[in-house]
Amino acid sequence: MSDLPRAVRITEEGPREGFQIAATPVPTQDKIALIDALSATGAPRIQVASFVSPKRVPGWADADAVVAGFAPRAGVAYTALWFNAQGLDRAMAFKDRLTLYGSVTVAASEAFSLKNLNRDRAGQIAAQRETIAAHQAAGVPVTRVSVQAAFGCNFSGDVAPARAVAAVSEAMALAEETGCAIEKIALADTMGWANPLLIERVVGEVRSRWPGQAVSLHLHDTRGLGIANAMAGLRMGVAEFDAAVGGAGGCPFAGHAGAPGNIATEELVLLCEEMGIATGIDLDALIAAGHLAERVLGRTLPSALLRGGSLAGFRAKARAA
Amino acid sequence: MSDLPRAVRITEEGPREGFQIAATPVPTQDKIALIDALSATGAPRIQVASFVSPKRVPGWADADAVVAGFAPRAGVAYTALWFNAQGLDRAMAFKDRLTLYGSVTVAASEAFSLKNLNRDRAGQIAAQRETIAAHQAAGVPVTRVSVQAAFGCNFSGDVAPARAVAAVSEAMALAEETGCAIEKIALADTMGWANPLLIERVVGEVRSRWPGQAVSLHLHDTRGLGIANAMAGLRMGVAEFDAAVGGAGGCPFAGHAGAPGNIATEELVLLCEEMGIATGIDLDALIAAGHLAERVLGRTLPSALLRGGSLAGFRAKARAA
Repeated sequence: MSDLPRAVRITEEGPREGFQIAATPVPTQDKIALIDALSATGAPRIQVASFVSPKRVPGWADADAVVAGFAPRAGVAYTALWFNAQGLDRAMAFKDRLTLYGSVTVAASEAFSLKNLNRDRAGQIAAQRETIAAHQAAGVPVTRVSVQAAFGCNFSGDVAPARAVAAVSEAMALAEETGCAIEKIALADTMGWANPLLIERVVGEVRSRWPGQAVSLHLHDTRGLGIANAMAGLRMGVAEFDAAVGGAGGCPFAGHAGAPGNIATEELVLLCEEMGIATGIDLDALIAAGHLAERVLGRTLPSALLRGGSLAGFRAKARAA
Repeated sequence: MSDLPRAVRITEEGPREGFQIAATPVPTQDKIALIDALSATGAPRIQVASFVSPKRVPGWADADAVVAGFAPRAGVAYTALWFNAQGLDRAMAFKDRLTLYGSVTVAASEAFSLKNLNRDRAGQIAAQRETIAAHQAAGVPVTRVSVQAAFGCNFSGDVAPARAVAAVSEAMALAEETGCAIEKIALADTMGWANPLLIERVVGEVRSRWPGQAVSLHLHDTRGLGIANAMAGLRMGVAEFDAAVGGAGGCPFAGHAGAPGNIATEELVLLCEEMGIATGIDLDALIAAGHLAERVLGRTLPSALLRGGSLAGFRAKARAA
């Protein structure tokens, strides 16, 4: 068990993931209320908005108002997502509230790149050059390499570990060529194709090849293996994860509408804390935020823990009995 | 990875688990249709009914008609559940259709024993003596030791590994004293308290102390860790699991109404087959049976895979594209 980290850092992506696929428009004030509730849980890092085209993601047309409206809490890093120079410009307007960094983002699957980013892989690399230049001109550091569909793809099928590693390699080469100091390699199971052994194999190869880089995992629970895959990541020493409160979200371009999205933050926190791995997050406060997310989104979220209830509550009752 | 088994045997408990908590009565014919659909998936073992008091579990008042009505398939073992001599009598009437065996069943938590079996632990041991004698008189072998609430309890809190092992020990002693040849130790996480390290610890201690016994796991996904816990069991060489199609079920006496029940069979099958562990089950047929279970039970079941769809389907589409 020696590879299990003593602490992990979870990036809460519930607001960004959840609102991008809300069936009916969520009032800006409700989005802000959820972000503020998440700030109070002890979450170290919250992704609060997506500066993407309102035509492609109508749920984030109000990203600017949301970011202007939430109440920043000391010690919490607030991040946002964007894919191009226009998105960066919108984010820059909030550089006092947001922790800004850029990513070199590639997809291991060309088919997904076409669906999600609207470009083939070569086009994606060319576009990344422009985006990196825009970040550098704006003084925003590009510190992360991010590989989407690193474990499989609904459109092209299995992604061999060698292909995932090659995608990391392409992105790292581009980062080096453009003078970006990369600190983290983020691997995303965007469509829920991973299994624990595949996680171990890919993470193992990435860690061996780039030993100086932190590895983070962005896992989806599309087919129910998300938390088992997170456990596999922990076993490989991964100490950074993305997750979404309630399991809110899901990629709008993945071809499996209605499937669960990101792993549920509260289930990841339970997994870690029950094994003595510190998250810094108050699980009961997070579960309460999950119930708020359900009210705000107007639907039952896939998290089992929101139904089962925290062990802390049952432990307290047992002690009192 | 050397402890991962090459094949596992899954007992499908969806019918027994699912119908015991159905909110509205399910017609007997629908129960039979689901059992027949499950028979066609290649499931090696299906628990088809619960011969319990109709007063306590009204959903199984028609157990006799269900067991009389399904179409047995060659090569599939059909089992049923009962807790006392009256239940055994009802099961004996179907000894040509059912694989009959008895269990020495104890709860690691006294509080749960009171809620679920209506007896304290001492009373439970006394009752087990009577039940064992009834099985022996009927010529039904008692081959299994079963420990409920082996990893924690909503009523009494944490169950230390030593307590779980002590419960196994009490049951094994009773089996030896009464001349039962035990072949399997079944550990149940009845209320979803386990985590992967706890599974490894308890299974490890049980395997070390009783090396001649097979260990099986009955895991609930109450708080979202069920499949990660199954993975931990696989890592410890466990090759027998209970699961319920769709994740149907949940214990009616556990104090967390609405929480997910057993791990979903199709998610366990996906986990195993993706890692090269044979289950003998046709996953797409099982997913179809899961959708049938949702229609029969009149509700959406918790399984993520029922929403996300099988990888086989996406792989076929990717090959055709």
